[in-house]
Amino acid sequence: MTTRQSAALDWAADDGEEQDLPHPYLLFLGDTVEPAYAKTAFGLRDWSGERCVGEWSLPGASVTTGLEWMTPDVAVARGARTLVVGVANPGGVIPETWIAALADALRDGLDIVAGMHVHLADIPMLAATAQRYQRQLIDVRTPPSDIPVANGVKRSGRRLLTVGTDCALGKKYTALAITRGLAARGADVRFRATGQTGIMIAGEGIPIDAVISDFVSGAAEMLSPAAKPGHLDVIEGQGSLFHPSYAAVSLGLLHGSQPDLFVVCHDPTRTTVLGHPNFALPSIEEVIRQTVALGRLTNPAIRCAGVSLNTASLSEAEAEAEIARVAERLGIPVADPIRGGPAFERLLDACQP
Amino acid sequence: MTTRQSAALDWAADDGEEQDLPHPYLLFLGDTVEPAYAKTAFGLRDWSGERCVGEWSLPGASVTTGLEWMTPDVAVARGARTLVVGVANPGGVIPETWIAALADALRDGLDIVAGMHVHLADIPMLAATAQRYQRQLIDVRTPPSDIPVANGVKRSGRRLLTVGTDCALGKKYTALAITRGLAARGADVRFRATGQTGIMIAGEGIPIDAVISDFVSGAAEMLSPAAKPGHLDVIEGQGSLFHPSYAAVSLGLLHGSQPDLFVVCHDPTRTTVLGHPNFALPSIEEVIRQTVALGRLTNPAIRCAGVSLNTASLSEAEAEAEIARVAERLGIPVADPIRGGPAFERLLDACQP
Repeated sequence: MTTRQSAALDWAADDGEEQDLPHPYLLFLGDTVEPAYAKTAFGLRDWSGERCVGEWSLPGASVTTGLEWMTPDVAVARGARTLVVGVANPGGVIPETWIAALADALRDGLDIVAGMHVHLADIPMLAATAQRYQRQLIDVRTPPSDIPVANGVKRSGRRLLTVGTDCALGKKYTALAITRGLAARGADVRFRATGQTGIMIAGEGIPIDAVISDFVSGAAEMLSPAAKPGHLDVIEGQGSLFHPSYAAVSLGLLHGSQPDLFVVCHDPTRTTVLGHPNFALPSIEEVIRQTVALGRLTNPAIRCAGVSLNTASLSEAEAEAEIARVAERLGIPVADPIRGGPAFERLLDACQP
Repeated sequence: MTTRQSAALDWAADDGEEQDLPHPYLLFLGDTVEPAYAKTAFGLRDWSGERCVGEWSLPGASVTTGLEWMTPDVAVARGARTLVVGVANPGGVIPETWIAALADALRDGLDIVAGMHVHLADIPMLAATAQRYQRQLIDVRTPPSDIPVANGVKRSGRRLLTVGTDCALGKKYTALAITRGLAARGADVRFRATGQTGIMIAGEGIPIDAVISDFVSGAAEMLSPAAKPGHLDVIEGQGSLFHPSYAAVSLGLLHGSQPDLFVVCHDPTRTTVLGHPNFALPSIEEVIRQTVALGRLTNPAIRCAGVSLNTASLSEAEAEAEIARVAERLGIPVADPIRGGPAFERLLDACQP
């Protein structure tokens, strides 16, 4: 573990070999008015709060994480080392007002971390300012350059992968909740990030969907290397085997992760694939069957540990009823990790290494 | 079709929108002594002979395509426009003697096309020479920059994909043979290349394994766009759904290609995955089942048209017996397209659009 590793993230790291992102963070929200675009900022607040000293937004912003608002110079005085761009800009273009603000942060002494499609270093003003003030522009969507082709050889240690009936329904939160829950029980467990927000939360990881397709499984092998027999890597899933755009990413991650266990993440209110209304959502049973059928190529012992239901849009009573109904139908542990409770403890029992 | 399109390749092109590689070609064999490293040169000789004016090799080479040996200046006088690097260098490093030879070719008036891991433009001497003489260095392993995320929407026209029980057993040759055979029958058919050699043969295509994983299915959609109802695209397959390193590429290609038909390519003498002795080769039946199970996501009507057996290492009698045995077992057309004959005509019948 590096000396920069914050104490509260001990559960996410067990050695000092990997690079860690410089922190604590100041969360940048731009002038965002749509909370859905601030998923990264909310994820950092929820799962890496001890890395965050506050938030900074521009005039016009209405989205807030609830953390203390402060300018970069104040954040630096409080120990911040990095400004994290915590919002996605749907148009893909960074507005001039953001660029000026990001340049100010560099001048005030912060590095910048982002995971957008646009690369910070491709914006001339930011590249020049970073060079002048000797600051880093870190793009977490850039995979390492030394990813090998997968070899398919079984590695020591245990692995759990979160999979889903769709994109964007809780695979990252489920992996984080399972990691945190098992760590609280004293297990030797570590979260492995595969997406930009997960990487910012963990301080490391590989953006699997940005890897050249020939190397996707190799990237997944690299991400969760051989470990001690009692160790469990909890790997953040991506996409879905039933997604018409992203199934290749999901399969490469499955093969390279060679999981012993997987947890199926599902949103009971969703009936079609997000953004693809002509594609019916697969059932949880279909996802279990397909994940076992394909995953046994690299781990014949693969099995489903349970189901994570995203019940955010249900009432407490509706959520409890839905969890009970699915648990009875499938005969395996089912829980909403965000709601916790005895159901989640049973899911953790099934994931325990 | 561009005016540069050679007449004999008419079957591989039906419009003029795509870029075509400049040709005729002079095939470069370096100082290669191992025929297995010259797959690209042999593929061009066999499938695009009308694009090739000759071959050029360096002292020490023992590999030959059988085409007339000539130096670049002679080839230019015969109409050649491009030197094609027809050999792979296993170490990944281009020897100094090759670089000097390639620079000579640029000076003599040829562009250079290659599909190696090393990019020609990253070799300073070649980059400088190309700039000085206004020649192109074309790397067919570089995918287009404007590939969209797949949308999964069914396109008009028909598609056939070659799939395999493994890598490197005839998916490209099978697709080319089916295209040529159907074109000879007058069908409206076009070969769609997904690998470096296929791209050099067709003069266009997308190197699917070099595409960022998030866009693999989108690349496959781009490669075989909507077409007239009677048109058939024959798409060169890659990898295998049962390959521990490359299944993600195969699945992305399958989903984006949304094939109506697929042909399973198999080498009856192979028992384990090439280079992975601990992975048993799947049976043809397993490949059919898995391809249908996964392919129906984007084309519910997907079905197997037949089997292509690579019987290169069998005698004529052994090959005939094996083809008959597999055909009886599966009840579908089985042929070795390279041997041709009535069995191949039956396979073509099943592929006819």
